[in-house]
Amino acid sequence: MHHTQALCRFLAELTYAQLPEHVLARTEELYLDWLASALASQGAHPIPLFERYAQKMGPSSGPAQVIVNGTGTSAYFAALVNAASSHLVEQDDLHNSSVLHPATVVFPAALAAAQDLGKSGRELLLASVAGYEAGIRIGEFLGRSHYRIFHTTATVGTLAAAVAVGKLLDFNEEQFINLLGSAGTQAAGLWEFLRDAADSKQLHTAKAAADGLLAAYLTADGLTGARNILEGDQGLAAGMSSDAQPGKLSAGLGSRWALVETSFKFHASCRHTHPAADALLDLMQREGLSAAQISQVQTHVHQGAIDVLGRVTVPATVHQAKFSMGTVLGLIAVHGHAGLPEFHDLALSDPAVAAFRDKVCMSLDPEVDSAYPQRWLGRVTVTTTDGRTLHGAIDEPKGDPGNTLSRAELADKFQRLAHFSGARTPSQANRLIEQVWNLRTTASMAHWLGGNCDD
Amino acid sequence: MHHTQALCRFLAELTYAQLPEHVLARTEELYLDWLASALASQGAHPIPLFERYAQKMGPSSGPAQVIVNGTGTSAYFAALVNAASSHLVEQDDLHNSSVLHPATVVFPAALAAAQDLGKSGRELLLASVAGYEAGIRIGEFLGRSHYRIFHTTATVGTLAAAVAVGKLLDFNEEQFINLLGSAGTQAAGLWEFLRDAADSKQLHTAKAAADGLLAAYLTADGLTGARNILEGDQGLAAGMSSDAQPGKLSAGLGSRWALVETSFKFHASCRHTHPAADALLDLMQREGLSAAQISQVQTHVHQGAIDVLGRVTVPATVHQAKFSMGTVLGLIAVHGHAGLPEFHDLALSDPAVAAFRDKVCMSLDPEVDSAYPQRWLGRVTVTTTDGRTLHGAIDEPKGDPGNTLSRAELADKFQRLAHFSGARTPSQANRLIEQVWNLRTTASMAHWLGGNCDD
Repeated sequence: MHHTQALCRFLAELTYAQLPEHVLARTEELYLDWLASALASQGAHPIPLFERYAQKMGPSSGPAQVIVNGTGTSAYFAALVNAASSHLVEQDDLHNSSVLHPATVVFPAALAAAQDLGKSGRELLLASVAGYEAGIRIGEFLGRSHYRIFHTTATVGTLAAAVAVGKLLDFNEEQFINLLGSAGTQAAGLWEFLRDAADSKQLHTAKAAADGLLAAYLTADGLTGARNILEGDQGLAAGMSSDAQPGKLSAGLGSRWALVETSFKFHASCRHTHPAADALLDLMQREGLSAAQISQVQTHVHQGAIDVLGRVTVPATVHQAKFSMGTVLGLIAVHGHAGLPEFHDLALSDPAVAAFRDKVCMSLDPEVDSAYPQRWLGRVTVTTTDGRTLHGAIDEPKGDPGNTLSRAELADKFQRLAHFSGARTPSQANRLIEQVWNLRTTASMAHWLGGNCDD
Repeated sequence: MHHTQALCRFLAELTYAQLPEHVLARTEELYLDWLASALASQGAHPIPLFERYAQKMGPSSGPAQVIVNGTGTSAYFAALVNAASSHLVEQDDLHNSSVLHPATVVFPAALAAAQDLGKSGRELLLASVAGYEAGIRIGEFLGRSHYRIFHTTATVGTLAAAVAVGKLLDFNEEQFINLLGSAGTQAAGLWEFLRDAADSKQLHTAKAAADGLLAAYLTADGLTGARNILEGDQGLAAGMSSDAQPGKLSAGLGSRWALVETSFKFHASCRHTHPAADALLDLMQREGLSAAQISQVQTHVHQGAIDVLGRVTVPATVHQAKFSMGTVLGLIAVHGHAGLPEFHDLALSDPAVAAFRDKVCMSLDPEVDSAYPQRWLGRVTVTTTDGRTLHGAIDEPKGDPGNTLSRAELADKFQRLAHFSGARTPSQANRLIEQVWNLRTTASMAHWLGGNCDD
């Protein structure tokens, strides 16, 4: 278990002063992007169910804030509701090689604990970096076999959230070892829900953040956990992976900052659709093609895309449409965008999108598949109505580190998402954006979201 | 998924009037036995950690009662703490062929929801039967491969607890299908903690009961789940079993009452030690042997016993001693009993027990292994100091349905467990025993435990 131990030592010893400027800056950007996703889900099913559950089972007030309704509750329920919220509109970040959405599990737990403990903005940033670095490595460790059945953001997310809270609780190496044990033995989340467009994706992130926080608070109080939960022969990899690589857990600790490899999502759809969407958009712009001139689109994809997207044929819900390659490419081809408004207004109702959807197929591509998950290559072959065969290719989808969003683009995305749900007016949104850019000098995260929160 | 559907239909249509008298009577007995286990853990690590967590994260009062401290809280936290409590002393029940401890996950969730919803004793009993029947079948469905890595009481326990609460919420077939989806996608719990004698066993049962309850309340409010979480190709069996048998899910519904096959625990140790312990005790009594006359004991066991017990050599804690075949047999041979007082006063400190421990070995036995898990056969070969080789065998350990405990024996066990922790005086314990025997005529479970619970 020396890889686990090395990881835990790194987490215990990590200080704010060690964080390079570009890591801190990117953490602030990822935090802003996360907050936008949470705001965008205000009022949308199934988020009110989680709000009502927190009200029924939790205290009537408390130090941790629920983003979508501004109420105060205990850290556990704030983590639960905020994590459900921030994964709903499929606009939150993704780390490619771990296939983990870190923001939606790390930040809800970290913010809830930081508010509960009265920690500063710097402490929040440091804890979030710890959560990202651990979660990404654990996701990479579990490998592709894990992701085939298990929703990595749910399983690994529990550990990532736990680590962030453990850092806020100033854990030493020994406590981090126990923490991973107690978080890892709660790791759960199956892809089966996708076939039915069921609400489990929100349940998964909600539980990952809340369970990780629970593990950390109990560890702080003395609960012990398995010392080798990741690598042990009755542990996480033994039970839920067939291609685990222990070396991934400790690779590049302190030199490679995995957090900065995280991608922002430009389209409001499952990330597996983005490479093909960008390749198609690029090809259509280059060739001056309209949707009507296209008779067929073959997308050349990695196996993970087929596993996740292959079960959706005709989408029944907006959320399911985000997992339909044909629908996403239809929105891109017909309307030029696949953002939240397009999904909500057009994805299910526009006959042109539906017609385009039926022209799209996926096929496994060896080159794309072998590059995955380190690189998400976009490759499409388009057949035109006048009989031409055209090829589109992009190597870094929009939002990837080499093709990232600027702070201005992120602020614009924030405004669009806050407007989409009506959660914030433009001036309120601007104030929140400024608060994020000032996290480093925020003395206490208590009441950070404003509103009527009681301490 | 017709097996899952058949199970859900059965659960939805099951009525109190359909329950045979011997099923109802056994449910009352299992409930009493469960309550004894919860009381026995009062004050013992790590239970106070869960109590403090509930106080910190939950409401300061509520309709559901925490058994070990009498306070009122919300149903979620009562289920959490009570399920942690009732699995600590290793005296709670076990169903053989599913290798599931049903009581410690079903009853905490059912009692918490029944108190929250103001349900009657009959409704509690009906809901508990539903939880047992579903949980046992799902455990059998997942098979032996699941139990090799996963703690079935944790994973399947989430579904069993969910079903009990769903029945209290009057779910129809469709709701039960969604409920299994939301509970199954939370199923977690790895055996890895056992090597370190870590506290995860309590975390597992706590989370199973609480997560199951959460799934049921959210389902009642409209959360959807995967429709085929058990049998689907990205579901529970696909991810966590290699020998699943779907037919087990629906076998004998309404004719076979799996609940009555559940065993009571006589010794205060892991159930895998009981067959050998009873076989040794029987042999020693038959031959008039003392511990000093025994030079070696070879226990002939099933693979599951080796998987669970094989990692404990010299126990470091009382809890770990309950998973040490040598220690359990040492207590039996030297002191004639392996109950809670023997474990706490003698298991780690008595040199005679330690010396006997080193005389004990386990070996895989094909006959015993092929009978398992339907039958837990006890087989020992004893070598005496005067050179004799003797064989001991029992086919039904004490507490199994064919060798069960009477109501008087269960009441005696209840008194001993309540006395062990000092949770109740003998007269208080007698009152609780009477309350259990009167569950069928209890109009509302609210305030059922007495004390200072607020509604």
